[in-house]
Amino acid sequence: MEQRYDIAIIGTGPAGVSAAITATARNKRVLLLGSTSTSDKVSKAHQIRNYPGLPEISGEDLAGRFLDHLKKMEIPITDRKVTMIYAMGEYFSLQIDQDFVEAKTVILTTGVSFGKPLPGEDENLGRGVSYCATCDAALYKGKEAVVVGWAPKEESDARFLAELAGKVVYLPVYKRADEEAMKDPLFPDRPNIEVRKDKPKRILKKDGRMVLETESGEIQTDGIFLLRESVSPDKLVPGLELDGNHVKVDRSMATNLPGMFAAGDITGAPYQYIKAAGEGNVAALSAVAWIDRA
Amino acid sequence: MEQRYDIAIIGTGPAGVSAAITATARNKRVLLLGSTSTSDKVSKAHQIRNYPGLPEISGEDLAGRFLDHLKKMEIPITDRKVTMIYAMGEYFSLQIDQDFVEAKTVILTTGVSFGKPLPGEDENLGRGVSYCATCDAALYKGKEAVVVGWAPKEESDARFLAELAGKVVYLPVYKRADEEAMKDPLFPDRPNIEVRKDKPKRILKKDGRMVLETESGEIQTDGIFLLRESVSPDKLVPGLELDGNHVKVDRSMATNLPGMFAAGDITGAPYQYIKAAGEGNVAALSAVAWIDRA
Repeated sequence: MEQRYDIAIIGTGPAGVSAAITATARNKRVLLLGSTSTSDKVSKAHQIRNYPGLPEISGEDLAGRFLDHLKKMEIPITDRKVTMIYAMGEYFSLQIDQDFVEAKTVILTTGVSFGKPLPGEDENLGRGVSYCATCDAALYKGKEAVVVGWAPKEESDARFLAELAGKVVYLPVYKRADEEAMKDPLFPDRPNIEVRKDKPKRILKKDGRMVLETESGEIQTDGIFLLRESVSPDKLVPGLELDGNHVKVDRSMATNLPGMFAAGDITGAPYQYIKAAGEGNVAALSAVAWIDRA
Repeated sequence: MEQRYDIAIIGTGPAGVSAAITATARNKRVLLLGSTSTSDKVSKAHQIRNYPGLPEISGEDLAGRFLDHLKKMEIPITDRKVTMIYAMGEYFSLQIDQDFVEAKTVILTTGVSFGKPLPGEDENLGRGVSYCATCDAALYKGKEAVVVGWAPKEESDARFLAELAGKVVYLPVYKRADEEAMKDPLFPDRPNIEVRKDKPKRILKKDGRMVLETESGEIQTDGIFLLRESVSPDKLVPGLELDGNHVKVDRSMATNLPGMFAAGDITGAPYQYIKAAGEGNVAALSAVAWIDRA
């Protein structure tokens, strides 16, 4: 990962892949951030009937073709998580774990997997609530923390946090392939992680401590980490204008922030592969025009 | 060709093909009108690099894949020319040569090959100027007519007109594969067709007759036929709102006419295959939602 890019693309579904291909064809320096296996929404689809030119293709095959297309154009995928994006005026600063990179333009293609925020989440963000264990673990040295993980990959963040924190309560908010496995210790090597199968309901402060209300009670703690597949886009990008749950864009895929574009499911229904791929192309060309403006 | 359809799609480029595929997948009765070899803009492309999933594909191969996809879904292409589309309130009436069909919704995907109208064209349309030889030939029985053809396929319309008219002057406004061939008689079997290599400039009326001013002079005649690849969409559809040269659409690909949608190059730049395919998908799903509305 270099320090400066023309176009940072967040997400490797059809919109992100399409944007990366077109931006690269237009000779821009592209940083493509996301899962190296493209999006689950593609790869787990049984059969896709309406991606013109590829009739009756399985999701797995379409994902394979996307990855093959990226490979042919020598576009690497960087599997790192962006935690914040700041509009700096002439460029954007992207926080990737504890690193920062700069990009002249950004294209958001992170889909709609983010859920609604919990009651109390927005008010306490940065004041006891965090989205990034890697960034904020140091604040909880010897203290207690709750980690709510929306996907199995967040287990590694809980494990990392437990290296510093005195105690970690981990709530896995997902089904595992083998539900029985949840009964076995998830972290046999980390006795200071307690796993609870419970559902988060609300966040509040009580007597100077954080409280996570759950379906079956409440947990008092020092800090609460909410690790979702992706966070709501306006939390990722301060100042970004939404339209309901989606990023507001015009026909050129421009958001309200100059130089920032969005494409795919994140911009709204219909949630379709070919729609996302088309929008990725438009967003890339709008970003190119933005960079090349007089 | 039946009499009634759910969705009439005008154009067989990537937008039209994509719309037809998605509309058919959603079990709607589709009439797909256009060239059976899809669009020249696709099939004549040397290489397409940015259609995700099909890297480095030739235009010919992509066109072949589109046609294959239509075939797999048993979607026929009807190679007939729409001359007018009337919004009737609850449905649309499409004039196809001298036939009429009805469709609950229409998706326009005719691209941007239409040129600017000639000075005097708009004022005299229906009063000596026509876009349709099949429709209006009978008016020129034994009279004189000028045919301006923007593509070789218009030669057959000139030939048909000459069966009824006393004299036809044919101006081919296109380059042929072999420019020399223009010197040979284009219509050896039709001595009443005169071929002139000239450029149309302006249309006017003089002493009760039509006059076509050309680069090299003027031609007096009874009627002038302007046969373009496609006509300006607001001439095809009375009342359709344009934005410059393009059809004005919102993010759902809806035009200002309820039940009418547009997709692809006709809606504006960028003129890209994957953008057009994505928009065709969105237009089809918007048309489906329109039909299924309570």
